[in-house]
Amino acid sequence: MPPRKIIIDTDPGQDDAVAILLALASPEDLEVLGITAVAGNVPLDLTQKNARKICELAGKTDVPVYVGCDRPLGRDLVTAEHVHGQTGLDGPDLPDPAMPLQDQHAVDFIIDTLRTEAPGTVTLCPLGPLTNIATAFEKAPDIAQRVQQIVLMGGAYFEVGNITPTAEFNIYVDPQAADIVFKSGVDIVVMPLDVTHKALVTKPRNDAFRALGTPCGVAVAQMTDFFERFDKEKYGSAAAPLHDPCVTAYLIRPDIFSGRKVNVVVETQSELTMGMTVTDWWGVTDRPPNALFIGDLDADAFFALLTTRLARL
Amino acid sequence: MPPRKIIIDTDPGQDDAVAILLALASPEDLEVLGITAVAGNVPLDLTQKNARKICELAGKTDVPVYVGCDRPLGRDLVTAEHVHGQTGLDGPDLPDPAMPLQDQHAVDFIIDTLRTEAPGTVTLCPLGPLTNIATAFEKAPDIAQRVQQIVLMGGAYFEVGNITPTAEFNIYVDPQAADIVFKSGVDIVVMPLDVTHKALVTKPRNDAFRALGTPCGVAVAQMTDFFERFDKEKYGSAAAPLHDPCVTAYLIRPDIFSGRKVNVVVETQSELTMGMTVTDWWGVTDRPPNALFIGDLDADAFFALLTTRLARL
Amino acid sequence: MPPRKIIIDTDPGQDDAVAILLALASPEDLEVLGITAVAGNVPLDLTQKNARKICELAGKTDVPVYVGCDRPLGRDLVTAEHVHGQTGLDGPDLPDPAMPLQDQHAVDFIIDTLRTEAPGTVTLCPLGPLTNIATAFEKAPDIAQRVQQIVLMGGAYFEVGNITPTAEFNIYVDPQAADIVFKSGVDIVVMPLDVTHKALVTKPRNDAFRALGTPCGVAVAQMTDFFERFDKEKYGSAAAPLHDPCVTAYLIRPDIFSGRKVNVVVETQSELTMGMTVTDWWGVTDRPPNALFIGDLDADAFFALLTTRLARL
Amino acid sequence: MPPRKIIIDTDPGQDDAVAILLALASPEDLEVLGITAVAGNVPLDLTQKNARKICELAGKTDVPVYVGCDRPLGRDLVTAEHVHGQTGLDGPDLPDPAMPLQDQHAVDFIIDTLRTEAPGTVTLCPLGPLTNIATAFEKAPDIAQRVQQIVLMGGAYFEVGNITPTAEFNIYVDPQAADIVFKSGVDIVVMPLDVTHKALVTKPRNDAFRALGTPCGVAVAQMTDFFERFDKEKYGSAAAPLHDPCVTAYLIRPDIFSGRKVNVVVETQSELTMGMTVTDWWGVTDRPPNALFIGDLDADAFFALLTTRLARL
Repeated sequence: MPPRKIIIDTDPGQDDAVAILLALASPEDLEVLGITAVAGNVPLDLTQKNARKICELAGKTDVPVYVGCDRPLGRDLVTAEHVHGQTGLDGPDLPDPAMPLQDQHAVDFIIDTLRTEAPGTVTLCPLGPLTNIATAFEKAPDIAQRVQQIVLMGGAYFEVGNITPTAEFNIYVDPQAADIVFKSGVDIVVMPLDVTHKALVTKPRNDAFRALGTPCGVAVAQMTDFFERFDKEKYGSAAAPLHDPCVTAYLIRPDIFSGRKVNVVVETQSELTMGMTVTDWWGVTDRPPNALFIGDLDADAFFALLTTRLARL
Repeated sequence: MPPRKIIIDTDPGQDDAVAILLALASPEDLEVLGITAVAGNVPLDLTQKNARKICELAGKTDVPVYVGCDRPLGRDLVTAEHVHGQTGLDGPDLPDPAMPLQDQHAVDFIIDTLRTEAPGTVTLCPLGPLTNIATAFEKAPDIAQRVQQIVLMGGAYFEVGNITPTAEFNIYVDPQAADIVFKSGVDIVVMPLDVTHKALVTKPRNDAFRALGTPCGVAVAQMTDFFERFDKEKYGSAAAPLHDPCVTAYLIRPDIFSGRKVNVVVETQSELTMGMTVTDWWGVTDRPPNALFIGDLDADAFFALLTTRLARL
Repeated sequence: MPPRKIIIDTDPGQDDAVAILLALASPEDLEVLGITAVAGNVPLDLTQKNARKICELAGKTDVPVYVGCDRPLGRDLVTAEHVHGQTGLDGPDLPDPAMPLQDQHAVDFIIDTLRTEAPGTVTLCPLGPLTNIATAFEKAPDIAQRVQQIVLMGGAYFEVGNITPTAEFNIYVDPQAADIVFKSGVDIVVMPLDVTHKALVTKPRNDAFRALGTPCGVAVAQMTDFFERFDKEKYGSAAAPLHDPCVTAYLIRPDIFSGRKVNVVVETQSELTMGMTVTDWWGVTDRPPNALFIGDLDADAFFALLTTRLARL
Repeated sequence: MPPRKIIIDTDPGQDDAVAILLALASPEDLEVLGITAVAGNVPLDLTQKNARKICELAGKTDVPVYVGCDRPLGRDLVTAEHVHGQTGLDGPDLPDPAMPLQDQHAVDFIIDTLRTEAPGTVTLCPLGPLTNIATAFEKAPDIAQRVQQIVLMGGAYFEVGNITPTAEFNIYVDPQAADIVFKSGVDIVVMPLDVTHKALVTKPRNDAFRALGTPCGVAVAQMTDFFERFDKEKYGSAAAPLHDPCVTAYLIRPDIFSGRKVNVVVETQSELTMGMTVTDWWGVTDRPPNALFIGDLDADAFFALLTTRLARL
């Protein structure tokens, strides 16, 4: 089987970085057609720069990086420097990127790629707010039916929320975009807080990254060290969750994840619950399933995969 | 210490029945000033009748029972016969009650009692929708500051919902009333699904009720048998939760419960998330705490208390 | 034909005062069973006092006055001292009232009266927020079908709003209560801003009040002088609207008013449009009519009626 | 003064057609850089075709026509065949267009034009839902500050609504897009129902179009005949409003229009009032003005302008 073609839509973010590195380290499984930057964890100027830093860290300077939307649909941008630091990629000391940005807008790259590649062969991997994806679907509605799958990090049900009591950050930042995506009819796999909160970077797991001894392994250890100090403090636990790599890990090893095909609707009307992913886990409504909502993973297998693959870079 | 004076506001309901029986069996701890019926699990005509059946089962026909509101504030009544059966008290075969209803309206009984008793000496125990309580607060706002405490069953955070994906039944039925109560400034203790879903009636626990051999013990076993078949099927588990008795058990043994003082706001604006108790468990907002939100209990101690006390009736 | 029995529910307010005076001056048409005070234009302590001042001004100290709810359902009270002055009745210098308040709560008076009088013989005349009426309907739902008619001042369609760009004051203060009333199934006549903004107190019309030479006529002239300075400034016109007397005038002379039987729904979900009376004037929805929405009046006949009747007091 | 450069964003629509014809007939005042079609009155396939029919009717086949978005942001498309007929341009019998469509997407044409032309020299003239404009602003936020002005037909305040009791069609179809545009900071002039309902096509005015004797004059008379039968029936009047031409007439003769600089917010949260343009006409909020809201026009001068200019085609 040839590798799956993917577009990574991202707002790096340390955990985005690990998700990207895992993909770039796995050419037998994943062909990264391009990386599209979006505003989210930090503003767009930083996320596009961070995306290139990560490609250079991986030694993959031939991956095209595109700049997308710099704000959500109809709302002000909310960022998360309190989690990710001022650069969005605090932790390691990575050099400014030398590789160029592509001229084409991220939205047009997504549209053109889906129109050019054979139908049903391109998977979208959103790791941040869904602004680029929704804008592409709005501008070119024909592409939705050509998407193979969307595997995204976002939302929560039993874990409820992180940025507000009822909303996860990626969905909260652009609920309108998320609403468009969840109503698009595309085959969607969701990595919510429910599963990512089980992907805990314990000290041994972080040590294993550092023990790779490579620049990439050390940088990943530094990134997760920095990134997770916030969650450790908030949740009072010894280990913190690693969100976005669940997306790329799922594409390589879906067998280590489990979930339910359920209905998910995004709250867009009430400010109190804005951005909540209302998930009908128990089937109490008659709304038809529109997403595979992942609830559990084999965390040991997940971290083993991560460490083994990152060792290649 | 004299027993705490309480008013039980209720829509029985099998689990309401057990909560009431526990209170009536515990005169050293609780003085039941009256029972006020409200529409909820089943319509008001049935809940007031069921309240009297339970008093008669307990042999406490001197407890005054009052009829309250027959519908929520500004919404149609939603009931739960699919859980409780057509009578609301399916399971045992209890005779029609002979004891009378009081003439006074439940809302006026609540108001008069709070005005007559010494300030800070009467606790309200709502086991159903909060319509009676909110209407009393609306008609007589002076009474709110005379309430010692409200200990209520309702809401959910990590357990999210039962009647909808995001709302627990009692709050969903009358979100406006719940909103009034949570904004009232009264000291509130909440028994949400988060804790009641840990009060599981396993077979040994149900057997212990039946083994009491008394009419009351047998009836309780029959009620929980009936009541819980719904949850067992829905959640696919061998045991089902017993919600309302957490309220009266808390008043007797607060030490076997634990929770956090947090902010709770009721969603009243979006139909999608209507009736959600938005709980700031992780302290991510600047909204001040207004309720003690119970998250855990010592289930063995809880069922031991229930069985020991019910044995007295 | 015997006079119609009415209960005036009111938050005086200068225009409420004129509406009450018109009723008290018209015993052949209207029998005022009682006046129930509610919080609105000013807090409840003032509105109940003002209601009694007005009765005394009219020399009708035998009209029973009841105290009702001091705040809307689930919202903070909004008042309008910027319109009515600090007392709510600024303008004339009326003595503190000597006549007593009734002991019974306004809500219970409404309930008892509707249950005692023959079905279909009592009309409710709300001149302020609908809190008392909605609370009575909530506590005693059986009374709704016994009401002859509700003739209320509130709402707007083409005139849209006064307290906000889309809401009239009475409805805005307690949208939940208004929603309950408009859904009650009672025969409702609405006097919205659309008609009251055509009941303009021109200088000649105000002079006619003053020319009555009676204490009552002079006080009415002083009240409208004060009350209307706000609207004159806001709308930049030489005359300002007289809202509440449209209600009692309609009961005496319905022939001088015209409107349409249409559907009215109260906005209760969005803060931006909160309290709007969404009126299907053009019949573009399939929602059935639930109110006679008055849009026009014969202003000369209206003021002639007012002056003639007030002359009697 | 050189002619103003404009882009007409449109969903023709008979009244769109007249607006476009007026612009094409006025080269000394307006330079039409392009026409961008959007879904609205009828689906996109028809609106782009109609746009070309109109250009051909005007003999201006060199005006580039672009295809834009085929549905609103996150909502299903609502159309208005009951007003405009199945083709959207019922009335005259116009031949299928032979002139080509441009390859470029309407959104990209808008973006590129605003980036290429000198800042502050291009005016956008939206005559339909604001989907194309909002999508362009989302994809390329830098262009907002380069727009000279947006003059749009949409919304209502005292006229309240046409498609629902509180919403005008263009805004109702895509409230999210309208919200983005009204928050964009661009200088906006709004032609709401308040003014367009005063631009009534009386019989003499329609006769004047027909009396031009040109194919264009006859077609305009046939279009307005067809288009207005709906409003005449609905409002029961002898003449019906001509909406969209107010936009292009304003650009030529702003002196015949009057309005107020006020704050306009689009309702996007409540389904009941969805798409309402909440307009602070009386200045009762502290929200700063963001639009010139036109309330009146010199209808005779407007129709004289229309007839005189259409005579040239």
